[in-house]
Amino acid sequence: MIKEFQKLLTEKKIDYYIVPTDDDHQSENVGDYFQSRAYLSGFTGSAGTLLVQPNAAYLWTDGRYFIQAANQLEDGITLMKMAQKGVPTLIEFLAENVKEGETIAFDGQTMTTQFVLDLDDALNVDYNLECVDLLKDFWTNRPAMSQQKVYCYDLKYHGMPVHEKIEVIQEYMKENDCQSHIITALDDIAWIFNIRGNDIPCSPMALAFALITDSQSYLYLQDGTYDLDMVKVLQQENVLVKDYRQIYADAASLKGRVLLNTSNLNYQLFNQIQCEIVNGMNPSQAFKAIKNDIEIQNTKNAHIKDGVAMTKFMYWLKQNDGKIAMDEMSVSQKVLEFRQQQDLFIEPSFTTICAWNENAALMHYHPTTKDFSQIEGHGLLLIDSGGQYLDGTTDITRTYALKEISTTQKEHFTMVLQGMLALQNASFLYGCTGQNLDILARAPMWSENIDYQCGTGHGVGHFLNVHEGPHGIRPKPKFQGEGCVLEAGMIVTDEPGIYLEGQYGIRIENELLCVEGQENEYGQFMHFDCLTLVPIDLDAIEISMLTYKEKKWLNDYHQEVYKKISPFLNEEERIWLKEYTREI
Amino acid sequence: MIKEFQKLLTEKKIDYYIVPTDDDHQSENVGDYFQSRAYLSGFTGSAGTLLVQPNAAYLWTDGRYFIQAANQLEDGITLMKMAQKGVPTLIEFLAENVKEGETIAFDGQTMTTQFVLDLDDALNVDYNLECVDLLKDFWTNRPAMSQQKVYCYDLKYHGMPVHEKIEVIQEYMKENDCQSHIITALDDIAWIFNIRGNDIPCSPMALAFALITDSQSYLYLQDGTYDLDMVKVLQQENVLVKDYRQIYADAASLKGRVLLNTSNLNYQLFNQIQCEIVNGMNPSQAFKAIKNDIEIQNTKNAHIKDGVAMTKFMYWLKQNDGKIAMDEMSVSQKVLEFRQQQDLFIEPSFTTICAWNENAALMHYHPTTKDFSQIEGHGLLLIDSGGQYLDGTTDITRTYALKEISTTQKEHFTMVLQGMLALQNASFLYGCTGQNLDILARAPMWSENIDYQCGTGHGVGHFLNVHEGPHGIRPKPKFQGEGCVLEAGMIVTDEPGIYLEGQYGIRIENELLCVEGQENEYGQFMHFDCLTLVPIDLDAIEISMLTYKEKKWLNDYHQEVYKKISPFLNEEERIWLKEYTREI
Repeated sequence: MIKEFQKLLTEKKIDYYIVPTDDDHQSENVGDYFQSRAYLSGFTGSAGTLLVQPNAAYLWTDGRYFIQAANQLEDGITLMKMAQKGVPTLIEFLAENVKEGETIAFDGQTMTTQFVLDLDDALNVDYNLECVDLLKDFWTNRPAMSQQKVYCYDLKYHGMPVHEKIEVIQEYMKENDCQSHIITALDDIAWIFNIRGNDIPCSPMALAFALITDSQSYLYLQDGTYDLDMVKVLQQENVLVKDYRQIYADAASLKGRVLLNTSNLNYQLFNQIQCEIVNGMNPSQAFKAIKNDIEIQNTKNAHIKDGVAMTKFMYWLKQNDGKIAMDEMSVSQKVLEFRQQQDLFIEPSFTTICAWNENAALMHYHPTTKDFSQIEGHGLLLIDSGGQYLDGTTDITRTYALKEISTTQKEHFTMVLQGMLALQNASFLYGCTGQNLDILARAPMWSENIDYQCGTGHGVGHFLNVHEGPHGIRPKPKFQGEGCVLEAGMIVTDEPGIYLEGQYGIRIENELLCVEGQENEYGQFMHFDCLTLVPIDLDAIEISMLTYKEKKWLNDYHQEVYKKISPFLNEEERIWLKEYTREI
Repeated sequence: MIKEFQKLLTEKKIDYYIVPTDDDHQSENVGDYFQSRAYLSGFTGSAGTLLVQPNAAYLWTDGRYFIQAANQLEDGITLMKMAQKGVPTLIEFLAENVKEGETIAFDGQTMTTQFVLDLDDALNVDYNLECVDLLKDFWTNRPAMSQQKVYCYDLKYHGMPVHEKIEVIQEYMKENDCQSHIITALDDIAWIFNIRGNDIPCSPMALAFALITDSQSYLYLQDGTYDLDMVKVLQQENVLVKDYRQIYADAASLKGRVLLNTSNLNYQLFNQIQCEIVNGMNPSQAFKAIKNDIEIQNTKNAHIKDGVAMTKFMYWLKQNDGKIAMDEMSVSQKVLEFRQQQDLFIEPSFTTICAWNENAALMHYHPTTKDFSQIEGHGLLLIDSGGQYLDGTTDITRTYALKEISTTQKEHFTMVLQGMLALQNASFLYGCTGQNLDILARAPMWSENIDYQCGTGHGVGHFLNVHEGPHGIRPKPKFQGEGCVLEAGMIVTDEPGIYLEGQYGIRIENELLCVEGQENEYGQFMHFDCLTLVPIDLDAIEISMLTYKEKKWLNDYHQEVYKKISPFLNEEERIWLKEYTREI
């Protein structure tokens, strides 16, 4: 396929054609229509950028996919291993190679504005930039762009009418002297307009744009995806529904100062704008991170159901281990089945990671129908999964001991548990960020010269993206706004781990809700309520390593799990849960 | 006094006269010559800014001094309690009150440039600025400016010749495209030119300026404070000695870009500069924070001597408690005497804080000849003290139980100890800052809704200032550069505490040296070596609260104290130390 495409480039006189893995909104997951990179290169991983020249081609991807990409890439495409010594980034590569007068092209609608701005900063020669979707004609049988039904998300699940959300955004715009605000991030749009859809895998969002001015708001949706009732409902909130592609013309006629975020604005839309741009985080990103009481109440309910599903699964796993054949795919399916039994469940919130022994050492491994392992013998099974329920989004990881595990495995499991419990039970003064708290989870590993080379935690959406900003827990902020203060109402995951290449991976993940504690002469103290309610495998713990306080933390947690989950179990499951939440 | 001064203002047509507590270098401590604020206001505390108007006067000071200032201030001066609700800052006050055409005046040599820049940002009216030292004629019997002898600091104590230090600074200047660099911070000057002096209380520094260009360096010293030998030594290092006040004329003739730091540049000097200013942290601040091997070796030796002095003192205290009369002043004197017995001791590194029971709840209390308490009955005695030795600077706090203390006092002491030990024994990946580590020391207090409302730790100079930047340990950076990465060779204090108003204060402080640990696939691990070697009062510990790990940390520490300190004690002291470093 790549050779044909290279001929097209020669024909069109394009020297460099960039194919990212993005939709028009820079979503974390994208639909089939946007899989041009996979179509051209053969590589089907979730992340990667293809660069095609008439006589060469390169694919950049990260450590999760080095092996898969090497296996799948078509002949003639060079694998560029990101973040490896001596491997330039795509921008560095272009800065080194692009010559005076050459042409760089891409589909402007799937290209991040920030990337183009950074590229332009890096290039020191005069070059031509061309926005053209070459795949439009080239890719015969291209899947259609998703056009799933959009629906209103019921007030009982979120508690805040559209006009109230728009009011706080307009206030923010006023403070920042902006007369209009373009929103392209699908989760921010879904939150503001209280709509949900099904255009993005694992995230209940619709393809949409939005424009808010100081007096009027516009929601841009694909024709045929919404009905008149919805238009009426939105009209009552002073929102006009327009056609999805109308945003491009409307953007061109904006006056004054427009607030937008170049990190999730596509370049074609950026190019339309003639007025002054104020580049910054969407205010809705900060607002939606702080869940209101109705959202919290719903989320807690979703977590009880999710806890029931995962507890029933754990019972099934422990009962059937060694009795029936299991593999990573069949077990993933089983996890899904237990969730599907729960009320208001819609879909998984991300592709399930079900990883047996050495597979779990690859932090983002997930089995596919073509590549999965049998689960047999003894060892550690890591399952990181979550659900989209109408009343909330969940994300949980448990690692299970199957048959006997080694002393070292138990010690490592216990260290991860100690880190997880230390963060979950942290008290801190208001004003702390995830950077202040990260070391609580990491300390047990660091004291043994081990690190998990990723963040400790991320925000979680409310029946939205399972990864949601701006806050997070890691030593240094990685994303825009991640250094923000932890506010009451924020949800954050707590997921330390140990990953030993070729051996095993351990991760334990609970979701935490940040809440206010005592206020006194020192200030406002904060702590976490744990949302996740699933036993932590006592078979994997080296009890002698735990302090009195850590045992109490675990026992209190398990008591809470039993109290909240047992009413929804059958007799056998309940007896088993009693045993697996026993005091140690 | 203030009324006389106000007449002078009327005469001179000055509407606002500002009297800060600063010398020409914005030093943390200043000599008697610079005590104009105390002379005019009557308030003798170490920090405060006086604003005088023809018909009014105001003194801004912080929480340490509210009571003292209220007692000492002359009639007609209003106390402005800093950081209290509703109290404007000096700049806010001026912004509110200064009217078109009015005149603000101050001695430009003792005024920080940054303050004047901030003031100018805040004022929205046309006003006049006048630099005049009205105290010059007004203050009869003003003490002379200190003119103590300046001497070369021996290579064996610091290990790095002047020209090497200047070379790294010139390299930094080149990288930042600066042709000259003015240095006004006395500790940076002392470090670069390997000189020491005695013009600043508790810090062995000389009043001096410095100018480094790309080809030549100049050291500006007061006439009569140095001898020809020193001039020759410095000449060999390509340094010319000039008169202290010559810097003003030399600054006026600079060309190109000059690097300087407006936070410790006096306004008069700033006003001389005609060329482009690059405002930034002095590179020497970052360089001198990382101690070299010779400095580390010397510092370790200084800490053994300091440990011997403080251990002998502790033996004396415990032996004589209840037998002889003690007060905060006599005990401070005793601490000094034990230090004076040590080789190479010069002076205390700061005014000793010796605080009995409720006095210790005031974080920066220290007894004075006019105001001190008897030490009698039972309770907690907090002593925070340090020494300037030719081979290093020390800073240590111990809190001692005298007779029986309450269970709550023991619990609080133990919490502080747990925090101190957790930081001292931290392992962390290279790249962490003091912001990442702070919570380790603070967590035991935070978990009981208690906070010590100050940083956990600060850098320490090498026979220089006891407070030295840029690094520090606190939740958020407070000073320029404090968010920097902790590097091997940095020294930092570890001093959590609990302060209960009207009751007692507890602080335990060790000095830590940051060192490299294992380097592996995760990166470079770092940890701390403890420099301070003095027992922690076992009489004050609630042993049942300590985990196995914490007991081991304490036992290992005490074993090290015994090993290093006991050889320098007499028989009785040694037997006692054995008992007070016993395994628990």
